Amino acid sequence: MSQPSIPEQEYRDRMARAQRLVREKDLDVVLVNSNEAEFANVRYFSNYWPIFEMSGVVIPPEGEPTLLIGPESATFAHDRSKISRVRLMTEYREPADPAYPGVPVSTFAEVFAEAGVAAPRRIGIAGYLVTTAPVLDGLRAAFPKAEIRRADDIMVSLRSVKSEAEIACLKEAFRIAEDAIGDLLHAIRPGMTELQVVGLAQKSIYERGAEYEGMPQYVFSGISTTHAISRPTHRVLEKGDLVQLNISARVDGYSSGVGRPLCLGKMNDKARRMIEFGMLAHQKTRAWMKAGVVAAEVAKKYKNLFVSNGYKRNFLYGPAHGLGMIEVEPPWMEETSDYRLEENMTFNIDTFFYEEGEFGFRWENGVRITKDGVEGFSSKYMELLELDV
Amino acid sequence: MSQPSIPEQEYRDRMARAQRLVREKDLDVVLVNSNEAEFANVRYFSNYWPIFEMSGVVIPPEGEPTLLIGPESATFAHDRSKISRVRLMTEYREPADPAYPGVPVSTFAEVFAEAGVAAPRRIGIAGYLVTTAPVLDGLRAAFPKAEIRRADDIMVSLRSVKSEAEIACLKEAFRIAEDAIGDLLHAIRPGMTELQVVGLAQKSIYERGAEYEGMPQYVFSGISTTHAISRPTHRVLEKGDLVQLNISARVDGYSSGVGRPLCLGKMNDKARRMIEFGMLAHQKTRAWMKAGVVAAEVAKKYKNLFVSNGYKRNFLYGPAHGLGMIEVEPPWMEETSDYRLEENMTFNIDTFFYEEGEFGFRWENGVRITKDGVEGFSSKYMELLELDV
Repeated sequence: MSQPSIPEQEYRDRMARAQRLVREKDLDVVLVNSNEAEFANVRYFSNYWPIFEMSGVVIPPEGEPTLLIGPESATFAHDRSKISRVRLMTEYREPADPAYPGVPVSTFAEVFAEAGVAAPRRIGIAGYLVTTAPVLDGLRAAFPKAEIRRADDIMVSLRSVKSEAEIACLKEAFRIAEDAIGDLLHAIRPGMTELQVVGLAQKSIYERGAEYEGMPQYVFSGISTTHAISRPTHRVLEKGDLVQLNISARVDGYSSGVGRPLCLGKMNDKARRMIEFGMLAHQKTRAWMKAGVVAAEVAKKYKNLFVSNGYKRNFLYGPAHGLGMIEVEPPWMEETSDYRLEENMTFNIDTFFYEEGEFGFRWENGVRITKDGVEGFSSKYMELLELDV
Repeated sequence: MSQPSIPEQEYRDRMARAQRLVREKDLDVVLVNSNEAEFANVRYFSNYWPIFEMSGVVIPPEGEPTLLIGPESATFAHDRSKISRVRLMTEYREPADPAYPGVPVSTFAEVFAEAGVAAPRRIGIAGYLVTTAPVLDGLRAAFPKAEIRRADDIMVSLRSVKSEAEIACLKEAFRIAEDAIGDLLHAIRPGMTELQVVGLAQKSIYERGAEYEGMPQYVFSGISTTHAISRPTHRVLEKGDLVQLNISARVDGYSSGVGRPLCLGKMNDKARRMIEFGMLAHQKTRAWMKAGVVAAEVAKKYKNLFVSNGYKRNFLYGPAHGLGMIEVEPPWMEETSDYRLEENMTFNIDTFFYEEGEFGFRWENGVRITKDGVEGFSSKYMELLELDV
């Protein structure tokens, strides 16, 4: 398959940019951490994506980086990693907590020394929100006097503005998700469970070229459409149900999410009115975004639109969040977001609306910021979807 | 669907047993942590399973527990959690790191005080391997003088021996995975990619009643069959390929994994001989297991079987690992495992064999320990699988 992917050279360029930031921030070394669900920071440098276990990357100010993995993944990591020095550490073992008698592992003292950082005074940690107790214990045991600082700003500055290759992967991931929604619009029927519809979505994304779901697929019906975040269930779909689909796919590490509400029949007037308002809010958000705009201004206009239309109680958050390797990644777009939008930043415009105790819905589409506005990554099925079932 | 599930009363019993252990271990409070991939410890008490965010449970020695969640999941958690007191904390926010202006959140000082533990001296942490830096920072800020100890032994003693309801969920999860393998044996063809076969597996498990994959589905071919842990790729299957399937499903929080190697055609003599040895090692392992046996003895016999047959270099680990909510959970069965097998402990017998640079395979089946031996959860397709394609 000739799918878009991240070229080898781009991995090397990413590491060079990261090392420049390590030097600029006067850190002696940065340790980047990931786990299975929050895989992005380590994969950004290595293309390695742990399963069961966790992983890290040691980034010295100059010289060779090191990929740190759990004791079971040596063959897998050597075949897959763009970072050639790979070391096994029990700090990155799987949570099932095996003892691995006889497996040779490294310590933080050894891997930092090998990276030319034998006695760091200031250690930056990126992926701080998923950095685990054993990793912190291991660092403190090896370097009791070192200062440990959060260094996630390095990853945000590396990852916020996307390259051509990253955008190509995202576009393909959105194409797959959007076409999977098309498949579901033909297949979904009363009598299926939410989870059976998830199975059809999964078949469709893998058939069309996904490497994984971009996030757990959302197929919600009934009261669970009021959940901003939820999990699909064995609930059986009925004629007349509102159903929320958020379908996602991942292409070479880049994740999409396309959201559409639909009705298995005709919507009632209230639902139709609210879903049409959501569509309007979605389109206005899109129109407010372009390079140079302060993110908080978009968030304020969005909130005001809800308030001025009498929908203040139906607002939970919004209007958009960063998009890339993870379907939700920094930066968010909130009323406190003081950064300016830049060309080739990518966002999911995420219009969530809920009427407490009744129903909710979400229109969601990916975009790239341009000089004059945005370029959309998904646009099909942006209409009132009332299925004849 | 009338699927097996964990009854309400069992959640209450679990908490009562946990509180007894908190008192016995002379801890003032235990904090249990989970994330999206390693969901088990929190779900064990609450049935709540985070998505994007993380979560925790505060277990005081007596009185009411508290479910701790991220700021976005209030409605979801209230509808799903068996623990009725739910509090939102930024320490459990998603790694995309939103600021949530205006969302009311709690602190560790507040939630511990509300649980009747205003000034803990000794805090136990379970799920230590997934406990994150922000949670540790929050605890230390709230209780600078408290001793923080690892308390995973509490979860291992609660979760190792399964109840009737847990075993029923596991059996159903294995039935689904095994029947999904049957579906794949009919559908798999040269020309499909590994990932397209994953899509068929996903459709099958959801159609048959799974709530999620029990672990990422393994469909490996060619050199990646030598990986103990790996990820499926876009590699196109060819006639004559050895293919490794490990198919999994989850039922009300309990995960299966069924492993079968197959050939898209006839195996060569070397592969057939090794795969037959693997089958023998698998069956012998099964015969060695029963209540009262020391786990290390099984592990030693297994290793010796490889060595005495001239397959020392083909041994990576084994012969079995704990099975339950997570497809791999404590206790492992290693040469250092000094515990005795008990009735209703559950294991996956996991016979992995690899010939470096050529191929590997894995026979895997779930079992329950009985007085006299084991009861199997999966047994179909335990034969040399040479498909006529």
